[in-house]
Amino acid sequence: MTIYISTLQCHDQPGIVLATTTAIVALGGNILENDQFTDPVTDHFVMRTRFSASVDDIERVQGLLFEHLERFEPTLRVRRESDRRRALVMVSKYDHCLAELLYRHEQGDLPLDIPVIISNHPDLAPVAATHRIPFVHVPVSAATKDVAESMLRALVDEHRIDVVVLARYMQVLSPAFCRDFPGRVVNIHHSFLPGFKGSRPYHQAYNRGVKLIGATAHFVTPELDEGPIIDQDVVRVSHARTADDFVALGRDVERTVLARAMTLIAEDRVALVGQRTVVFTQ
Amino acid sequence: MTIYISTLQCHDQPGIVLATTTAIVALGGNILENDQFTDPVTDHFVMRTRFSASVDDIERVQGLLFEHLERFEPTLRVRRESDRRRALVMVSKYDHCLAELLYRHEQGDLPLDIPVIISNHPDLAPVAATHRIPFVHVPVSAATKDVAESMLRALVDEHRIDVVVLARYMQVLSPAFCRDFPGRVVNIHHSFLPGFKGSRPYHQAYNRGVKLIGATAHFVTPELDEGPIIDQDVVRVSHARTADDFVALGRDVERTVLARAMTLIAEDRVALVGQRTVVFTQ
Amino acid sequence: MTIYISTLQCHDQPGIVLATTTAIVALGGNILENDQFTDPVTDHFVMRTRFSASVDDIERVQGLLFEHLERFEPTLRVRRESDRRRALVMVSKYDHCLAELLYRHEQGDLPLDIPVIISNHPDLAPVAATHRIPFVHVPVSAATKDVAESMLRALVDEHRIDVVVLARYMQVLSPAFCRDFPGRVVNIHHSFLPGFKGSRPYHQAYNRGVKLIGATAHFVTPELDEGPIIDQDVVRVSHARTADDFVALGRDVERTVLARAMTLIAEDRVALVGQRTVVFTQ
Amino acid sequence: MTIYISTLQCHDQPGIVLATTTAIVALGGNILENDQFTDPVTDHFVMRTRFSASVDDIERVQGLLFEHLERFEPTLRVRRESDRRRALVMVSKYDHCLAELLYRHEQGDLPLDIPVIISNHPDLAPVAATHRIPFVHVPVSAATKDVAESMLRALVDEHRIDVVVLARYMQVLSPAFCRDFPGRVVNIHHSFLPGFKGSRPYHQAYNRGVKLIGATAHFVTPELDEGPIIDQDVVRVSHARTADDFVALGRDVERTVLARAMTLIAEDRVALVGQRTVVFTQ
Repeated sequence: MTIYISTLQCHDQPGIVLATTTAIVALGGNILENDQFTDPVTDHFVMRTRFSASVDDIERVQGLLFEHLERFEPTLRVRRESDRRRALVMVSKYDHCLAELLYRHEQGDLPLDIPVIISNHPDLAPVAATHRIPFVHVPVSAATKDVAESMLRALVDEHRIDVVVLARYMQVLSPAFCRDFPGRVVNIHHSFLPGFKGSRPYHQAYNRGVKLIGATAHFVTPELDEGPIIDQDVVRVSHARTADDFVALGRDVERTVLARAMTLIAEDRVALVGQRTVVFTQ
Repeated sequence: MTIYISTLQCHDQPGIVLATTTAIVALGGNILENDQFTDPVTDHFVMRTRFSASVDDIERVQGLLFEHLERFEPTLRVRRESDRRRALVMVSKYDHCLAELLYRHEQGDLPLDIPVIISNHPDLAPVAATHRIPFVHVPVSAATKDVAESMLRALVDEHRIDVVVLARYMQVLSPAFCRDFPGRVVNIHHSFLPGFKGSRPYHQAYNRGVKLIGATAHFVTPELDEGPIIDQDVVRVSHARTADDFVALGRDVERTVLARAMTLIAEDRVALVGQRTVVFTQ
Repeated sequence: MTIYISTLQCHDQPGIVLATTTAIVALGGNILENDQFTDPVTDHFVMRTRFSASVDDIERVQGLLFEHLERFEPTLRVRRESDRRRALVMVSKYDHCLAELLYRHEQGDLPLDIPVIISNHPDLAPVAATHRIPFVHVPVSAATKDVAESMLRALVDEHRIDVVVLARYMQVLSPAFCRDFPGRVVNIHHSFLPGFKGSRPYHQAYNRGVKLIGATAHFVTPELDEGPIIDQDVVRVSHARTADDFVALGRDVERTVLARAMTLIAEDRVALVGQRTVVFTQ
Repeated sequence: MTIYISTLQCHDQPGIVLATTTAIVALGGNILENDQFTDPVTDHFVMRTRFSASVDDIERVQGLLFEHLERFEPTLRVRRESDRRRALVMVSKYDHCLAELLYRHEQGDLPLDIPVIISNHPDLAPVAATHRIPFVHVPVSAATKDVAESMLRALVDEHRIDVVVLARYMQVLSPAFCRDFPGRVVNIHHSFLPGFKGSRPYHQAYNRGVKLIGATAHFVTPELDEGPIIDQDVVRVSHARTADDFVALGRDVERTVLARAMTLIAEDRVALVGQRTVVFTQ
């Protein structure tokens, strides 16, 4: 038996689950996991199905599912579970998020492929080397920003990238790039959004005297730090903690939240619906 | 449209979801929420479906679902969402769990009916009176234990009780009662099970020097504090807290955990599978 | 032995602890708890001392401490632990925060006195009556706002109020009032500040698609929802939760956070230092 | 100015803080942080003081503090903050706790020295090499257990080790060793103690159907998994998680809890008092 994951979005209407299960039964298969959600405000329907089938033929499986479901006009994606998502990681100088992703990747806890790492600084090349992942240094200045982004697009194409991960990448991508890759660029912001957008959020948080600091993994949109949220978490801080302590404590939250978000994405558990996400956790 | 909730358990096999959705479509209905789980060890299948139907006829709905599903030999229960579960609450002298349940009940956050409260002490009669719920004082001693339990059984029958809630009830029910009502008696234990079974768990926890204390809502079985766990939670405690502080801090965890467990049960989100529970959270 | 609590603030300089302990030893006493904090940025020093003394004479104790400490020009307050802080609670129509405070008060978990409750609506008079606390209905409209605030000031004087608690009070106090009672008015805001200031924060949070919602207890200043934070907490929410669910789930966080903040204040564990608080937790 | 940390334990009695502060003032110093705790049951007194002094002379500072405090018969330790604690880390085959400690150590978040790593297996030698820390392979079998422990004792002496860290070291140290190094051997146990002592705790937890799994950092005593607890934490798990998932999720808790415990120890924030710990967190 081969295992497949399908994700579907469409307007809610009777018969979608029936059609899906009919197709899966016709493929000699069985549902292993099924999660669905109907937005009560918009009647938008989202479903993720992990199923087995007796055929190991992605085109046949896709074809049969499309055939049964096309009258619902869905956005439908089907893949073999073993055909892993491909992530391009972008970094600058901070290594904690990158190190966490690579550590989990090696442990087998992050089921996606990382064919290339891009940075606007050369500092983290040794980290990439330790993990034997190609590292491309793409400097970014006001003058070279367009060229840099062209290189990024070329690498996305070349490596058939599904998702770009900004793992504390300190440059802002252009609105055009964000628009061209909706739901395919993930950023970790070092605050509990929507609090403390922009730069130096821990220092903003310290000055505001908060008692919890946080981090937010979100899809990137042209509006800075306004994209749909995938996951967030917080940690308690006391008055005795300095702004530098916030930075250090926050690192732990950042790497946990980004790693969790990327695992969810690797397993196709995150659906983008307008300005919000549907996340089918285990 | 009328809303129904069905819960189903059987051995996993292809076609269950197909049969269920076929029946719902035949009822002119649609799935509103669907959660399912297949135990990878035992291949046991559990499903909860919240669906609409164009008929307001519980027998017709049950009949059609049974007809489509009977070849899978399921344990199947179907009810109108508006036919709320009925809970009998048992207490002794501590009021915090009872007060929390009644408060949420009045707020509309706990969608079940509480037709009667039983206690082995008269102390909490005023609390019941404030909320206009009948309060039955059933004293328990070694000599009267059997009689008391007969009264309990009579009240369960009389009020068509679905679930008995031990909200810090300080007596142990007989093994016979536990066996006769599997998955229908819920207890809140004032520790993070399996740590600190038995009496005075907070004092046990204090002596052990733990840094987190907790509470556990579980189904009652003949083996004391060994029943399947529904929900648990913890709160951090420092060395500066005394055993009495543990008791006070623990009260908050107990009432939160019990209220959460009872809301899950009220919405048919908890399935008992052997020694473990399947909990379909939102 | 009589137990006292002293709180002190001044510019940090050698000898403060020495002077304090010298005074306590001279009073035949001993330190039971001592917490101190020096802000590394401003060198501002904050200390809370809980101590015993062989004399039961607040003026003598205050006098001796002032005498030993006056060269440091401190802000110093000393009280008998048994002379409890006095809180005036203000509410509108939502009862959950009020109910929680009164419940804990009756349990003995909230060591302060609540001599009076004020509301701009009559709805919660029965809740106050159940707990035998005077309830004053002070309607507020654009025309009567000044009169209402005069009544509030009169009640604060009459009942020798230490702290005014806005327990989901839906009116804004005037800047003049806020300025006249710095560090003496506490509000519970139903969001994780600084996110979602202003009205309908849960609906703002729902629209933003956050994965955690929260509540914040803070001192009130003339700038709305900008006052120094005392405590905050969050609870996880999924995409399946509606804005109304956020309101219901948020109620639990609000009452927990406000109760915790008021317990800290009752025990003189909260010091206001500029725009931030120093909180000496146990 | 030089910064010192002193830790003190003795029977509570008036004058200890006075004597300490008198000595510090005599050294031209000032208290930077002071935490104290009196056990209300035993009247045992514990204090940690971080202070500056105008002299950079550890013997003079120790001498003056001892002189002022000796009449209280304290257990007193004083060190320069810059003279960091020295930790020997023991591992077997799992690398996650070791990797976390070394990562934080390199980041500057774990202020202690790690002069040597010991393992009963050669597998993690490359991890040690990457971080340029000597790695000693000491195989352990029934026949060589005594010899292995002699080597351990020799390495503790040679490297002037303050604390031995069992970072998922899968051998049990002898009762004699545990008794000879009280409060100086730290273990991370992969369950929320006292639940699930002994081996394969995640599988025990899975079978028990818990809804939270945890990890516990504790001092090692001759009784297995019974030593005083330093820190604990938990993470929520659903029915959908397998025992293998518990192992993977638990790894994150283990490394967080052990790292936190070691940071507390590095800063002399943990005092061992009988079967419990006093932990002065920030």
